[in-house]
Amino acid sequence: MNKSRLEAFSDGVLAIIITIMVLDIKVPGQSDWDGLMHLLPTLTSYVLSFALVGVYWNNHHHLLNSLKKISSNIMWSNLNLLFWLSLIPFGTKWMGETHFNKFTLILYAILLVICGLSYSLLQNQIVISLKGTKSDLPAIIKKQNFKVLISGAAALLAIPAAYVDTKISLALFATSSIIWIIPSKAIENELSKKDKNDTDTKETRAI
Amino acid sequence: MNKSRLEAFSDGVLAIIITIMVLDIKVPGQSDWDGLMHLLPTLTSYVLSFALVGVYWNNHHHLLNSLKKISSNIMWSNLNLLFWLSLIPFGTKWMGETHFNKFTLILYAILLVICGLSYSLLQNQIVISLKGTKSDLPAIIKKQNFKVLISGAAALLAIPAAYVDTKISLALFATSSIIWIIPSKAIENELSKKDKNDTDTKETRAI
Amino acid sequence: MNKSRLEAFSDGVLAIIITIMVLDIKVPGQSDWDGLMHLLPTLTSYVLSFALVGVYWNNHHHLLNSLKKISSNIMWSNLNLLFWLSLIPFGTKWMGETHFNKFTLILYAILLVICGLSYSLLQNQIVISLKGTKSDLPAIIKKQNFKVLISGAAALLAIPAAYVDTKISLALFATSSIIWIIPSKAIENELSKKDKNDTDTKETRAI
Amino acid sequence: MNKSRLEAFSDGVLAIIITIMVLDIKVPGQSDWDGLMHLLPTLTSYVLSFALVGVYWNNHHHLLNSLKKISSNIMWSNLNLLFWLSLIPFGTKWMGETHFNKFTLILYAILLVICGLSYSLLQNQIVISLKGTKSDLPAIIKKQNFKVLISGAAALLAIPAAYVDTKISLALFATSSIIWIIPSKAIENELSKKDKNDTDTKETRAI
Repeated sequence: MNKSRLEAFSDGVLAIIITIMVLDIKVPGQSDWDGLMHLLPTLTSYVLSFALVGVYWNNHHHLLNSLKKISSNIMWSNLNLLFWLSLIPFGTKWMGETHFNKFTLILYAILLVICGLSYSLLQNQIVISLKGTKSDLPAIIKKQNFKVLISGAAALLAIPAAYVDTKISLALFATSSIIWIIPSKAIENELSKKDKNDTDTKETRAI
Repeated sequence: MNKSRLEAFSDGVLAIIITIMVLDIKVPGQSDWDGLMHLLPTLTSYVLSFALVGVYWNNHHHLLNSLKKISSNIMWSNLNLLFWLSLIPFGTKWMGETHFNKFTLILYAILLVICGLSYSLLQNQIVISLKGTKSDLPAIIKKQNFKVLISGAAALLAIPAAYVDTKISLALFATSSIIWIIPSKAIENELSKKDKNDTDTKETRAI
Repeated sequence: MNKSRLEAFSDGVLAIIITIMVLDIKVPGQSDWDGLMHLLPTLTSYVLSFALVGVYWNNHHHLLNSLKKISSNIMWSNLNLLFWLSLIPFGTKWMGETHFNKFTLILYAILLVICGLSYSLLQNQIVISLKGTKSDLPAIIKKQNFKVLISGAAALLAIPAAYVDTKISLALFATSSIIWIIPSKAIENELSKKDKNDTDTKETRAI
Repeated sequence: MNKSRLEAFSDGVLAIIITIMVLDIKVPGQSDWDGLMHLLPTLTSYVLSFALVGVYWNNHHHLLNSLKKISSNIMWSNLNLLFWLSLIPFGTKWMGETHFNKFTLILYAILLVICGLSYSLLQNQIVISLKGTKSDLPAIIKKQNFKVLISGAAALLAIPAAYVDTKISLALFATSSIIWIIPSKAIENELSKKDKNDTDTKETRAI
């Protein structure tokens, strides 16, 4: 019912997920260049996951922005998404410690696919809750869907790719977060248009 | 006095409790299917506790929603609940690492019973604080009580059940969170009715 | 300048301090009654610190409630208090792991004294900032001061007491948090009086 | 778009960064004066980083205060800053555990320089977003820039200084946080002037 607490709780969980990963970076045996080089897989794994969780936070933020009423379904879909995202620090640690072993890489890819599906599930619940409210936001979500799809496809492709070369999988993981850094002008234009509409409406009312 | 800070602090503590449990999932010695299988009890334990803490957050959120004034009693009852909930990550870790050893399972069940009682205590304090405010929310809380009771009974039953078969106890733990996922329409109907009443009152006032 | 962010940050830090201590409770070697008994000092240490940090959060909450303007001095006094409080999980761990060794107990007592002084420092800064604002809250803070003093004296006494018997020190630590659970009616009466005054003023204005 | 969630998320991440560092302070083998002395480098490292992250939180708070609209660029610049800051607990741990080994000290200095650059990047994005809004806040940011510069220069100097004596580097790190504790009156005067202006404008409007 209270949207702000759902946001606060999600922000808290996401902030913890993104930050506790650093606790799993172990101090290497040597304190020199070699020691740092030895940390490279762990650090790469961390950067990757930080970017991915950052993207999820950003999108989650946009998604909930459009929300007006919180139903039980949305509450549980959100908790489901947070659960899968909470496993990312573990996946990151395992992948990093084994220097991107094929098996752990596939597990991580599967985890990302499940996170993507959980995100889509939450999105669906929000679209349903917006039905009949004459909101134009589902259109924006549809545009964001394009990126969600590419992101999910990249994670899915990373599974067979791991059998060829784990580096391809890593490149696909990187892709699935980098595409989000490119601002989807569509969303912002749409939102600023809506803001303008709101202002227009208010001005009209004022008149 | 300031309800929003009580919510913010509780959200923070609950978000940390639910997320730090993942730090206790240790990377297995083998990075293959066997290693993953070896993780199964730890993961099951994690899923169980994530769901239970999620349920507590959800209910806590509904409970505090109905709150208007924060007394010292509510403050301390809330802190008491958070304390017992904060032991869940430890109970989860112990239970998972010992592959659901009977002793740790009973401890976990006792912990859940105490959490349930602490929740009821907090609820009682809130009911008392709502007395004389002509609020119809205690009725909703009474309906939620039904689930609190089943949930508590399941945890209580898990103690003797552990002497028969620890799997029954695990099933009872699962039950005590799954019943919460089923939306109790009653609560939502009641709330939407209240919202309608509020709107009606406002409209009447507007007239 | 923005009070809500100072509160949010402090709540975040306090919520983390109070919760991460549970991460330091190690699973005992034996999963039976003996193992649990072996955990007792660690658990006692945890309960003690949870209560103390809970008291600090509660008081901090009351203190900042009376705040209107945030100066640099308040900002840094607050950060100073959070710093010393952040060492409590470490003190707790050390004290628990050594089964309340005299040396660690004295360190913990010194830490509590410094926390108390830091709290008084923050309080002073707030009293200064309220000067000339015709606020009656310094009176309430003065009443709360009584408990702050007892609490600080108990922690201070725990230092020489440790040379006699560490159990006396532990009892003093417990005292310094238990006195806070007793609601200081004075504060609440004062506040409700103020609320009533506010309402009166508003009603007068309405007339 | 929603500034309050960006603040909440950043506060969460910064609160976690500043607090989890305490988890890396290991209980020493001896529980006496020698044991405490052995902890000294770790504690020094912790104090240093706590102060630095505290300064970043404080500045971040001022910076976002002046913000009105959140663009994608600001969102990502902010996430970039949080990423580099999130590595501070790791740098702190490494530096502390190796008793300020030259190599780890240089790494820490480099990390601080990157954090400083990331902060400037975020600041730039905010200055850009404020362009054309007739806000006088860029002037304040310009004054704050002076401290950002000194702070960054101190971190940069700490790199060659480590080759001479690691103690000079440590002194430079301390400097780069201590200069922030000195309140830059300019900022507060400017802000209070702005507040007064706002009030004046409002009063004028009221007339």
